[in-house]
Amino acid sequence: MIKAGIIGATGYAGAELVRLLSAHPEVEITFLGSRSFDGQEFSSIFRDLAGVADEKCSNMSLKEMALGADVVFTATPQGFSSSEMDEEILENAKVIDLSGDFRLKDPAVFEKWYGIPQGAPQFLDEAVYGLCEIRRDEIKAPGVRLVANPGCFTTCSILTAWPAAAEGLIDTGTLVIDGKSGVSGAGRGAKVQNLFCEVNESVKGYGLGNHRHTPEIEEQLSCAAGKPVTVSFTPYLVPMERGILISEYASMKPGVTGDDFAAAYEKYYGGEEFVRLLPEGVSPETRWVKGTNTIEIGFKTDPRTGRVILLGAIDNLVKGAAGQAVQNMNLLFGFPESMGLRK
Amino acid sequence: MIKAGIIGATGYAGAELVRLLSAHPEVEITFLGSRSFDGQEFSSIFRDLAGVADEKCSNMSLKEMALGADVVFTATPQGFSSSEMDEEILENAKVIDLSGDFRLKDPAVFEKWYGIPQGAPQFLDEAVYGLCEIRRDEIKAPGVRLVANPGCFTTCSILTAWPAAAEGLIDTGTLVIDGKSGVSGAGRGAKVQNLFCEVNESVKGYGLGNHRHTPEIEEQLSCAAGKPVTVSFTPYLVPMERGILISEYASMKPGVTGDDFAAAYEKYYGGEEFVRLLPEGVSPETRWVKGTNTIEIGFKTDPRTGRVILLGAIDNLVKGAAGQAVQNMNLLFGFPESMGLRK
Amino acid sequence: MIKAGIIGATGYAGAELVRLLSAHPEVEITFLGSRSFDGQEFSSIFRDLAGVADEKCSNMSLKEMALGADVVFTATPQGFSSSEMDEEILENAKVIDLSGDFRLKDPAVFEKWYGIPQGAPQFLDEAVYGLCEIRRDEIKAPGVRLVANPGCFTTCSILTAWPAAAEGLIDTGTLVIDGKSGVSGAGRGAKVQNLFCEVNESVKGYGLGNHRHTPEIEEQLSCAAGKPVTVSFTPYLVPMERGILISEYASMKPGVTGDDFAAAYEKYYGGEEFVRLLPEGVSPETRWVKGTNTIEIGFKTDPRTGRVILLGAIDNLVKGAAGQAVQNMNLLFGFPESMGLRK
Amino acid sequence: MIKAGIIGATGYAGAELVRLLSAHPEVEITFLGSRSFDGQEFSSIFRDLAGVADEKCSNMSLKEMALGADVVFTATPQGFSSSEMDEEILENAKVIDLSGDFRLKDPAVFEKWYGIPQGAPQFLDEAVYGLCEIRRDEIKAPGVRLVANPGCFTTCSILTAWPAAAEGLIDTGTLVIDGKSGVSGAGRGAKVQNLFCEVNESVKGYGLGNHRHTPEIEEQLSCAAGKPVTVSFTPYLVPMERGILISEYASMKPGVTGDDFAAAYEKYYGGEEFVRLLPEGVSPETRWVKGTNTIEIGFKTDPRTGRVILLGAIDNLVKGAAGQAVQNMNLLFGFPESMGLRK
Repeated sequence: MIKAGIIGATGYAGAELVRLLSAHPEVEITFLGSRSFDGQEFSSIFRDLAGVADEKCSNMSLKEMALGADVVFTATPQGFSSSEMDEEILENAKVIDLSGDFRLKDPAVFEKWYGIPQGAPQFLDEAVYGLCEIRRDEIKAPGVRLVANPGCFTTCSILTAWPAAAEGLIDTGTLVIDGKSGVSGAGRGAKVQNLFCEVNESVKGYGLGNHRHTPEIEEQLSCAAGKPVTVSFTPYLVPMERGILISEYASMKPGVTGDDFAAAYEKYYGGEEFVRLLPEGVSPETRWVKGTNTIEIGFKTDPRTGRVILLGAIDNLVKGAAGQAVQNMNLLFGFPESMGLRK
Repeated sequence: MIKAGIIGATGYAGAELVRLLSAHPEVEITFLGSRSFDGQEFSSIFRDLAGVADEKCSNMSLKEMALGADVVFTATPQGFSSSEMDEEILENAKVIDLSGDFRLKDPAVFEKWYGIPQGAPQFLDEAVYGLCEIRRDEIKAPGVRLVANPGCFTTCSILTAWPAAAEGLIDTGTLVIDGKSGVSGAGRGAKVQNLFCEVNESVKGYGLGNHRHTPEIEEQLSCAAGKPVTVSFTPYLVPMERGILISEYASMKPGVTGDDFAAAYEKYYGGEEFVRLLPEGVSPETRWVKGTNTIEIGFKTDPRTGRVILLGAIDNLVKGAAGQAVQNMNLLFGFPESMGLRK
Repeated sequence: MIKAGIIGATGYAGAELVRLLSAHPEVEITFLGSRSFDGQEFSSIFRDLAGVADEKCSNMSLKEMALGADVVFTATPQGFSSSEMDEEILENAKVIDLSGDFRLKDPAVFEKWYGIPQGAPQFLDEAVYGLCEIRRDEIKAPGVRLVANPGCFTTCSILTAWPAAAEGLIDTGTLVIDGKSGVSGAGRGAKVQNLFCEVNESVKGYGLGNHRHTPEIEEQLSCAAGKPVTVSFTPYLVPMERGILISEYASMKPGVTGDDFAAAYEKYYGGEEFVRLLPEGVSPETRWVKGTNTIEIGFKTDPRTGRVILLGAIDNLVKGAAGQAVQNMNLLFGFPESMGLRK
Repeated sequence: MIKAGIIGATGYAGAELVRLLSAHPEVEITFLGSRSFDGQEFSSIFRDLAGVADEKCSNMSLKEMALGADVVFTATPQGFSSSEMDEEILENAKVIDLSGDFRLKDPAVFEKWYGIPQGAPQFLDEAVYGLCEIRRDEIKAPGVRLVANPGCFTTCSILTAWPAAAEGLIDTGTLVIDGKSGVSGAGRGAKVQNLFCEVNESVKGYGLGNHRHTPEIEEQLSCAAGKPVTVSFTPYLVPMERGILISEYASMKPGVTGDDFAAAYEKYYGGEEFVRLLPEGVSPETRWVKGTNTIEIGFKTDPRTGRVILLGAIDNLVKGAAGQAVQNMNLLFGFPESMGLRK
């Protein structure tokens, strides 16, 4: 049994972490950190966890928590974890950061897209990008102390495109990504724009041309392609609670066929527990991954236009946040990778 | 006062037509055609029209209806109107066809995408494509007898891209269209796939690479561009009742800026009653066009990638079907173009 | 043409008033009052009103507005209108108050249920309770200056029970009211509890035993019954945007049959434009009154239990707020009662 | 490991059974019965079960299945299980019937409310009513072969009222039950009335005065009260996928207080794993029981009216159907009662 603390436990991703860790056979939750609900019992806010997570929330610093836990999850707004991070913390506990603070290797890129300074650039080199299916060996390597848990749109975008980019099946210069997300991705803050009556029965784009997940997608897909990749990424808000569907459009390299895509995805993901590959022409649906750590991936080649559509679906709070964080924890501590996770 | 008949009055588009025509000051509805509800009072099915459209539905042929009406609307499945159409019908009544039968000029293209023969190719030449903002003069021309009312995805896709294509601001060879639609677009048939519990809280793609609106979009945008245009079009089902949001991604021609787009859209649509142009960077939302005949159009140029996003939103049952059909009727009969329509 | 001002124009009820008044042939909106959006253009918040209500909102007092308008609507939180009301205001403009301030005749009852003092008890006697179908003659009487526009649950509860209570068909001592409401009834404030992800896919009760509409229902139904009536009223939140469905359960007086109910409701409402009476056993549905000023009323007698179910459905923002306010205005100024309203 | 078969595996309750049984450590699913999807792989219909339940569905009789299984679940329309039941079946397998066929002890009552004959009245005496919290000892008794799994509205209505009725806290003659249900309760049949666009953004009553769960509630609550109980029960359809909220209104016996209710519910349910008791005045919410076998129960006494509101919430597909069926199976076979079930 390891001891785990969560900062930001009363947000949607944080609460999902509490759900998953409460049922994890190797974890004891020792701290539930929350600034907004300091002193309140966790299960008075998320009543489905009554009898499971009844402890009071407390407004603790990252250091306080690190001193009494084996692993700390930070499900916090951008800027928090890098502003609190120091050597003493990492010497005491492993940190899995669900925010964007340690995902981009270049602090200048971080500042450009996030509009705030990266407060602890000295740890950027050692931070491992926790996209398990792609970077499993790095995450499992001895001595890893800090994992940058990927963003929700990014997890889905990168996993969906990786084999096609890595195997050179598409012209990455033509890559356009259209992401449709449920509302929980916008967080649990009290904002008019996320009220039921503002969101229901409507769909809209947001962050046109400047969403913060863009450079993260580009950095990772550049690794896949072995050369710089620039993408157009646009997110959309869909009236549902959970789920992300990513559509990626690209021109195919000459001569490439549907069989080539099927083979590439099978090569990279055939043995993956949390990847469900669909036959060509079948669209992923967020319905079928809800509550699971699974990504559904589908594709359709279109010889008429010379383009391919790559499609991926995840539960943004599980594979896109809390579930992947648990998967990372499992890798860090040597537990079976799928322990405590639904497929 | 003119006399109007509707075939397919008990589908979602048909019922919306009944609502609009019932409130239209120059129209008397004389026939409510329905095969499924033959003999039932219309307002027993759509109770909001009690006291307004209480007549019984009847299963009439297009010819029967044409002999007793000035205008007949066919809100019917593909193949119906072209299989029933003949000269006598068009000599007696103007026909506004909401199906796809008369939208494509080449019957071979129709057969390829619809999988059925076009039953009345002799009328394809005279059929006018009823996209009012683009083809107003053709529709108003004397002697027009047959209007092919555009599809919902098509209306929104074409209007959103037209000025950019016509003014040469984009490389039409790179055009990728992603369409997000509410469920009413799937019709009122009793199908498991459209049950509340199958659609709610999920999003998925469909018709990957073969949706029937594709050739219609291509035919019209080829007119705009003055050269053949091929597009990738993919529709998605979103858990809401009404609304379509179209996203169009394309590479900009060298040197083109946001001001060029603003100027082009102002040039084409500045005087249009049913077009609402948004400032650069603001996304249309289906919420703001619900129940209206308006299209909201927005855009965002991205110098970083060299691409532009063009965005359009309509109510699929109004501007995407019944409302545009009324707008066409107004043009055909010389009524004010916006009569009976909400902006 | 009369001049109208609205305080609280950017709430859900206020914005619906703007929609209705903008389309009303006898009204010119001269003031759009909003504290939260002072200085912003109204149509930048509610974009469907672009071109219709583009004026800037301003944070005006009730008196300022009354000095420049013929009628002022107050769509404000409880306590506002009674704290600002004075004789000069009412000498200059008619006031239609959508809050609860002037609905209860006894200020002590107001204070008990609302927890705040009624700031202008000197006007309670002259305030007319604006439930048009029941108090039309009082509202139309010469010299009326102040109308207390009924609450949403109350409008539906009272109209649904009135004929049964007035004709002595039910034992009013047994009356239990269960009200199911959409989320717009909770207002447009930024509260976590009304976020999409808190409300969607769930149903709950609230205000158990102490909802403020209770004494209002009791006061009016006591008038109907000619004796004091006490009711149990419980509201529930349903994941939809608009609509209220009221269920009222009561024991029938001995010998009463379904025909008696049908006759009673026909007697009271047979000539009403905004009441749709359904045959016994047919349930009202909020779907069929959405966007209209209509109430659907249904009932079912159950000889097995000796009880009757009375059911009513309205659009909470129209007949339950803004629409009824316009109906009251029409009565006050001698316009046709249904002018500017949908049935 | 026991072998289990399911008839009606492709309905919503049946599929939920497949989910639960697939993860149950003591069960192997050997038969997936479906008439509509005979010959299709189960996971091609419910894709979340890919890799878990990939077997083909087959259209088997109850007897065929009973001969090869230890337990058979019938998630079938009314009339099926009683028409197929015979001695040989029960000698070979235990049957847990999720339909209404064996819930009412008097076949005449069954015929009156269901409109069809009960085909196997000789087994009514031995059938045990499987409401586990109430009838645990009967279900666990040696030799039980046939369990009538309670209905969804009934489970919630009975559990919510039982302690109050059994302890004589309420006047059962005044009991009125208002039930709000999600759409999955209506089944997976292709019916227009359950289409997304018919159900979304609306609420309505149905089965006014004649819903089939009424006599079942009455029969069980009569046991609790020790005298005949007659109730008014009315169900409502709410636009959500899962969940039932039951509201029960009754007059309190003289002198009864909130403390009496708290004590009674603690007495009956204090040790129950699947009952979550809420403090007086807190409403259950379907959100907090979704996906679990838990019932949330709350109450509010109202001295002003002399009435109490009893409230209960369940997931209709779990505690209201498949989960309770698994709980019954656990009792029948001596497994831990909560095995394979979420709280």
